[in-house]
This record gives sequence, C-alpha cells and structure tokens, in this order.
Amino acid sequence: MRAVVRRNKQLVCDEIGELEPAEGQVLVRTLACGICGSDLHALHHMEHMIDLSRRAGGMGTGFDPSADTVFGHEFCAEILDFGPGCERRLKAGARVVSMPLTMTAGGMEALGFSNRLPGGFAERMLLTEAMLLEAPNGLPTDQAALTEPFAVGAHAVAKARLDKGSVALVIGCGPVGLAVIGALKAAGHGPVIAADFSPRRRAAAERLGADIVIDPAKESPHERWEDLGVPKTRAAQALLRMMGKTFARPVVFECVGAPGVLEALIEAAPAGAQIVVAGVCMESDRIEPSIAITKEIELSFVLGYTPEEFAGTLRRLAEAVIDVSGLVTGKTPLEGVAQAFRDLADPEAHVKILVEPCA
Amino acid sequence: MRAVVRRNKQLVCDEIGELEPAEGQVLVRTLACGICGSDLHALHHMEHMIDLSRRAGGMGTGFDPSADTVFGHEFCAEILDFGPGCERRLKAGARVVSMPLTMTAGGMEALGFSNRLPGGFAERMLLTEAMLLEAPNGLPTDQAALTEPFAVGAHAVAKARLDKGSVALVIGCGPVGLAVIGALKAAGHGPVIAADFSPRRRAAAERLGADIVIDPAKESPHERWEDLGVPKTRAAQALLRMMGKTFARPVVFECVGAPGVLEALIEAAPAGAQIVVAGVCMESDRIEPSIAITKEIELSFVLGYTPEEFAGTLRRLAEAVIDVSGLVTGKTPLEGVAQAFRDLADPEAHVKILVEPCA
Repeated sequence: MRAVVRRNKQLVCDEIGELEPAEGQVLVRTLACGICGSDLHALHHMEHMIDLSRRAGGMGTGFDPSADTVFGHEFCAEILDFGPGCERRLKAGARVVSMPLTMTAGGMEALGFSNRLPGGFAERMLLTEAMLLEAPNGLPTDQAALTEPFAVGAHAVAKARLDKGSVALVIGCGPVGLAVIGALKAAGHGPVIAADFSPRRRAAAERLGADIVIDPAKESPHERWEDLGVPKTRAAQALLRMMGKTFARPVVFECVGAPGVLEALIEAAPAGAQIVVAGVCMESDRIEPSIAITKEIELSFVLGYTPEEFAGTLRRLAEAVIDVSGLVTGKTPLEGVAQAFRDLADPEAHVKILVEPCA
Repeated sequence: MRAVVRRNKQLVCDEIGELEPAEGQVLVRTLACGICGSDLHALHHMEHMIDLSRRAGGMGTGFDPSADTVFGHEFCAEILDFGPGCERRLKAGARVVSMPLTMTAGGMEALGFSNRLPGGFAERMLLTEAMLLEAPNGLPTDQAALTEPFAVGAHAVAKARLDKGSVALVIGCGPVGLAVIGALKAAGHGPVIAADFSPRRRAAAERLGADIVIDPAKESPHERWEDLGVPKTRAAQALLRMMGKTFARPVVFECVGAPGVLEALIEAAPAGAQIVVAGVCMESDRIEPSIAITKEIELSFVLGYTPEEFAGTLRRLAEAVIDVSGLVTGKTPLEGVAQAFRDLADPEAHVKILVEPCA
C-alpha cells in the first residue's frame, strides 16, 4: 500500500508492506488525517524530540528516529477487516476515530511516531478494536478527524482550575488554541479572550465563540484584565480580600509553544494567574523565577487527554456544541503532503490541512 | 539610637534618628531579629532585587536601593509607647510579633526593605498597633522571632494541594525548608522526605519531624518515590488508573532557590508532581518546557503568607506543635552583624542567627 514515509528527514511517497490485523486489532482504511504541529517539528527534529521524551520517561525506548516513520495521529477511518478475537461490535464499513495507540504483542505503539506501524499518512492502519469510537451519522469525516486535536483542548481546560468567576485568556489561536477556545465555550466558561497575530486565526477563534478577540500587534491582551474584574497586582488583590470582596480568577492558556512566550506571560499576567502550558515548546527556555514567585504564578504543563476526554470531544463535535465547520482549510492526497508541510509554515495560509491517503 | 545600616553595599553600625509613633503606630524595642537569606542577597544585589520586584508589580516605587536601609523583618519586640489614636489593647512591656508592614501616612512600608523606617537591626522600630500579636507567656523571645520565617512554610504548605495520600519531598533544609517541614508535620502530613547536603541541617529536619532524611551526596531522594507508592512515569500512572487503583500524589517543595534546581526537579520528579517553588532564585533560570509538558508537572510559585497563616504559626510555635527549640544557632549584638552575614555563607555553621540590637 502507499504511504508518506519520513526518511532522512524528508517526506517521500512510497510503497510499504501490507498490514495483517493481529489479536484484537482491526484493519482500517484511512479516510482523513490531520497534519499536526508536532509532525512539522518531528520532520526535522525527531532525534531531539525523542531524547526529550525519553528524559521525561515518555515514548518507548524501542523507537528509532532514524528509521522509517509514517506520521499521522489525527484520523478518521473506515473498518475493513477484523483480527482474531475481535468482538465485531462495529461492522465493516463503519467510520471510526480512535486515540492513536495500538496494542500489539510487543506493547503499545504510538501511531504516527512508530517504526512498526504506520500512522494516518498511509492508505491503511491497524487500530485496537476496544478503543474504536464510531463517528456518529451526520458528523462529516473531516470534522471527525478533528476529534484528536480538540481532545487536547478539552484536557487543557480540565486541568485549569476554572470557576464561574474565571476570566480565560488564550494566547495563540493555532489548532491548540482553537481547541482550548472550543472546550472553554462548550463548558460554558466566559469571558474568553483570544489573541493571535493572524487575521485568519482570529476569525476562527471568533467562530468558535471567543468573546473578545485581540490582535497583539495593536493591543496587549493584558490591558483587558482590569476591565474584566481582575486586579493585576498582588497588593490590589490583597486589599480587595481584606475588604471581603472577591474577584475573577485569571487563567491563561499558553498555546504558542515558542521560547520566550512563557516569561512574557509571567511578566504580563495578573498576580495569582494560573498559566496552563499547552503549547509544546521543544527548545530550552528561560524564565525569571523571582518574578513568578513575587506574583505567585502557577504553571500547569499539560499534554494529551484521557479516554473520557477523547470520547466527550467526539460527542461535542457530533452535537455541534463545538462547531468545527470551516476549520479544515486544505486537503491533500499523499503526493501533496510534503508541500502541505511547507504551506503550514505560514500561519495565514491555513488552519488545518487534512491528508486523504486514498483520494 | 543605634542600628546596622546598609550603606554602599556594606553593613555599618551607626546612629540613626529617633522614632516618634504616628497615628495607630507603636514604638517598640527590638528584642531579637533573625537574619534572612533575602537579607544576605539584598546586601549585594538590592538594585537587581528591586528591579525584579518592580517588574512583578511588587515592592513600592518609592524605594531607593542606593539610600540607607536597615534590614530585619523577622522580629520579636517589646512595646515601649503608643502613638495617637491607639487602642492600647496590649500594654507597654508586652512582647509582640508582627508581620513586617507598617502603615504610615504615606502608605505601607515593608520593614527591612524601607528607606523611611528601620527594620529589626535597630534598637527600636515603629509597628502598626492593629497588626501586633502578643507572644504568649512561655514562648521564649528567640522562638517568637521565628514566627515570620515559619509562616513562610505554612503558606507554602497551604498552597500545595495535599491530601491524606500525598508524599512530600522537601529539597533543601535551610530556614525555608525547615519551616515547610514544620508546617507539613503540624498539619499531620506524611511521609515527609527531606534532603540536604549539610549534616547540621539534616539533623534539624529530623528534629522537626521529617520521616526520611536524605543526604543527596549519597542517594537521590527520587529513588524513594516508588517505595512510597508513587509510580514515576505517566504510563505507569495511567495503567494504575485504568485498573481502578489510586496512588499517592507527589508534592515537591523547592527550598533551595538556586539556578538549575528547578530543571533538575522537573527531570527527576515523578510525572504529575506539583513542585511548590518556595526557594527564591534571584537569577534567571533555564527549563525544558517539553519535559515538564510530557510529565504534566505543575510549578506553583509561592511567597509570603496571609495574616491568618502568620497568626496560626505563632500559635503552633507557642503550643510547640512545631518545636523550633534548637534552631537558633547563634546570636549577635549589632557590632557582629556584618560578621554574622559572612558566617551564614557556610550552611554547616548555622541554621539561624538572631540579632539582639539592645544586647
């Protein structure tokens, strides 16, 4: 079958071996698979990513970043066939999504970052039957494929200690920031402030329900805190508390993932802010601990999602509680994937590009 | 009256002006005042400290770090006289402690970091009557003077999300770490692991109730997590959760405050750990955000205490719920303060030195 293979830090279309579903596995046809920011990074920096992940006790020691890899972990697929021991709860032809993890005799494989199994930039994949979730009728395949990135937003919001009086600021409206905005509004939170330099991304933030959308080139989003009832300094907050008054709790979602953003937020956010770090900065970064201490900042680093958050996200997309129509701004067959990676370098050009391996 | 003045980055004994209590103020005689790590740092780096504090929206804009300052914010004092409008709830001669803040017509002065009012390295001070707490009979003056540093520990512990199943690790057993250990044990938490290179500080940790005391030169404290029921990797934790099992929540207290410690903890702590940053690192520091993200680390930066935490700490010292006897390892009159600052550079030489300005 055909796939886009990462080989020598390049993406090449090639034939790879056919797949045979083992115990508990299903063979699926990949209908659509999103390109993630982590794919863009991994194309050139896989070795560094794997080193960092290992230092964090993460991704499998069996992975060889110099060997062939087929990316793709944000997919919607169609069941083709079942391996031995399957329950066949869903039928062949059913459209499914799944967390990108496949149980094998040798352990769990992370689809999209595996040498042994291909991810969604291949015509077919092997998934774990027990993890399949059917894409409900009426949910277009393109939108079902957004379950994975939007589950990331649901997780970040679940990790934030938000209450009714919280004010949320989302820094960066790429796919992670948009997923956070969607999850915040689905949970009934507001006001939600969203900031991004790109007009296209700001428009997407607005469609997902952001209450205030800001171009940081024109205005700092941190100018808004006081108007929204959040005093900025610790002294001002202490004074209100002494007077028996309450105020809105500031929560900032860092969805950029570039060096320097964290320290800029530590300096600009109100005292007592929780900064949920959802943007994955793969480079070493510098902070001023004493400023974070004086302001009693809380940095909550988050990644991934739980099975419940993944399933809940699919439900919310299906019920259009989170309206993701319009977020897919491009589609490509396998031949165009390398070009799509280059196109995604421009934040204005696209929000999300889907790969259609069988198109 | 006599005081130790910081002048041209040196400590000099000098005569300073007599004090007259204004509205709501009391004049006190300083009985004892601890030397804090922040005093040691401020002696040489006040300008940098003030710059950082201002960037954090902190300490008053009226402060001039190049002008004379009398340090000292950890004190026990005796009431001498009352300004106009005082309630005189306590009598002259009463021994008192107070948060180091004095209300003046020009605003709040931070005693010990003020150009206008002297801190506790002076024979006399002006305090705010409304903030005075009487040192109960039976609580020695030396121990009452430890209320302030131990309130810092109470605050750090209050900011940690601890429950019955939590395992706490305290990194660094200087005054901040010891205060954290005292507060943890006073609140009934355990096991508490304490780590410090200094035998004297480890002995102090043990006296304050640390359950396991470790010399990091011989053994990493992070070797103990699994024995205490905390799985280290996210995968191991997820597996336990899938099996419906719970496990102890890891909470690390960073009480060193030197560059590099934070990143070492991010790399060594179990996944999901809350790292409460109580050690004040005044230098810029480097972290690997992607490792913190993969492990879902939470960094909670904390500083100071609330009036309730300060009062509660005095109560716990008075009731010997926290036994601070033996922590004062040296005393000096004003003439010896400069030498005491030098002595404190050696962690083996002292735990806490008190200044006795009237001795």
